[in-house]
Amino acid sequence: MSFSSQSSCLAISGGVGGAKLALGLAHMLEPGKLTITGNTGDDFVHLGFFISPDLDTVMYTLADLNNKDLGWGQEGESWNFLDAVKRMGGESWFRLGDRDIGTHVVRTQMLAAGKSLSEVTSHFCKQLAIKHRLVPMTDDPVATIVHTRAGEKLAFQHYFVRDECRPEVTGFVFSGIDEAKPAPGFIAALVDPTLAAVIICPSNPFVSVDPVLKVPGVMDALNSSKAAVIAVSPIVGGQALKGPAAKMMAELGMPQTALAVAEHYATQYPGQVHGFVLDEQDRGLRDEVESLGLSTIVTNTVMVTLQDRMDLAEAVLDFSSEIT
Amino acid sequence: MSFSSQSSCLAISGGVGGAKLALGLAHMLEPGKLTITGNTGDDFVHLGFFISPDLDTVMYTLADLNNKDLGWGQEGESWNFLDAVKRMGGESWFRLGDRDIGTHVVRTQMLAAGKSLSEVTSHFCKQLAIKHRLVPMTDDPVATIVHTRAGEKLAFQHYFVRDECRPEVTGFVFSGIDEAKPAPGFIAALVDPTLAAVIICPSNPFVSVDPVLKVPGVMDALNSSKAAVIAVSPIVGGQALKGPAAKMMAELGMPQTALAVAEHYATQYPGQVHGFVLDEQDRGLRDEVESLGLSTIVTNTVMVTLQDRMDLAEAVLDFSSEIT
Repeated sequence: MSFSSQSSCLAISGGVGGAKLALGLAHMLEPGKLTITGNTGDDFVHLGFFISPDLDTVMYTLADLNNKDLGWGQEGESWNFLDAVKRMGGESWFRLGDRDIGTHVVRTQMLAAGKSLSEVTSHFCKQLAIKHRLVPMTDDPVATIVHTRAGEKLAFQHYFVRDECRPEVTGFVFSGIDEAKPAPGFIAALVDPTLAAVIICPSNPFVSVDPVLKVPGVMDALNSSKAAVIAVSPIVGGQALKGPAAKMMAELGMPQTALAVAEHYATQYPGQVHGFVLDEQDRGLRDEVESLGLSTIVTNTVMVTLQDRMDLAEAVLDFSSEIT
Repeated sequence: MSFSSQSSCLAISGGVGGAKLALGLAHMLEPGKLTITGNTGDDFVHLGFFISPDLDTVMYTLADLNNKDLGWGQEGESWNFLDAVKRMGGESWFRLGDRDIGTHVVRTQMLAAGKSLSEVTSHFCKQLAIKHRLVPMTDDPVATIVHTRAGEKLAFQHYFVRDECRPEVTGFVFSGIDEAKPAPGFIAALVDPTLAAVIICPSNPFVSVDPVLKVPGVMDALNSSKAAVIAVSPIVGGQALKGPAAKMMAELGMPQTALAVAEHYATQYPGQVHGFVLDEQDRGLRDEVESLGLSTIVTNTVMVTLQDRMDLAEAVLDFSSEIT
């Protein structure tokens, strides 16, 4: 069964991995039928710039400006700013490319002038001729704090970039989340009566997806929606394709498997996640995932080419129609 | 008579033209014997950056990082930031190079953290291995405002860069100057008992030199000093070598001559400027300049090579010894 052209879809994405599926969905769906909500728990102010790494990764990916070699930042990037900062004795651990800074400077200016992060993101998408809606999870400040075995409480980018994910994690706190409201475009997508699929992209469950789903009001809206909620495993063959998800699972005492990801979603959001997408390599886990109460499909989730992204998007959308 | 190795020198500089002579002086004098004071009336906040164009030009020149083709900014500069800002719909009229932004970002951060502009400038000089003292005229906010025939009151960089000096000027106001104090390093140089020469570099008299000399306390300190005060004409053969000085003179109803520059200094600062340096091309103006009460020498003031800069520096220092 294929996804109805009358239905709309909401994708929830972190950075690189999520952006790949978001791009596939953007190729499969009309602009009015897709909203992509980006995690903003990783946002931070650095060198005076307001930086929103996940929104930028999705935005650059949708505009085909993303750096395919690095997996983050912009294509054709230069690094003269960072060299100069280093020479002038400034902080240079966060790799800011010369083009990338243009984004941060304009965003910082617009926020200082009273615009919301949603308005800034929408303005950027217009400038970059992105046709699909990209919205932050919230316009309010939420900061993912990484708690470590050594007793530190690290701002996410300090953990992720400066300390290169070396500290052993014990848990995460989303500071400010209790006071946060879903961004207008996020809530609009959630309450849209045509919403048929909510796709949790293959992003880090703990630091990319959980912050989005834990914004107050999101679960209630999902509850009231008829949409099928489907998660795509970011763990394939026991490894994270990108980022520290697998390392975090080990440190949190979880098996490093797609099954453990499914368990995480099933226990954190009981009854709210209906479907799970396993990679071919994890076909053997299918029965166990289904025993958690999740409908499951097995397909190729390793997205190398654009066609891979589109194929996975199509498979996930079709899957959502079957669940609904 | 040559300049004593026991004596110290204070140079007052705007941007490009002044920086050339400042570099010549830096080659002729021991680090402890030269202070360069930069105009900060052109400073402004743009895209959230605190930008100090004259201090940066002198600093880059002394560090041999200056762009010799453009005459401003850094050598080997790239422009990806500006392209990105344009793409994102931000203001792009002020040409900020990727390397240059490193300076502005670190400065903005340090100022926000409570450092003074003097402390930031001194930190930068240390980072760039500049041995001579470079100091702002003041750590307080002073803004040169250009009044125009059309009745506008333009912030200097709007006049100079955005409007490319097209508006006809009627005068200048240095907003904030009455409350400003000379920067600590500037006043220290002025009251130094070994101060033997104050060199007014060949910079724009109206918008580069006047703001520095009009900081409250500067004239009193000069009055109490035994130093010879010598101005080098920025007008050669009726033209400004760089910038809008000649155009401004015409608009202000002054002849576009080195003599008119000498008259400006003699009337604005009566008895305070003792010597004037004319270019060979303006040899014919010598008697008239001397009749203003200014000792005068004629030499090559058009600095093309480093040797030209050093030769002019030597000639001016020797001249100061003769006046003292």
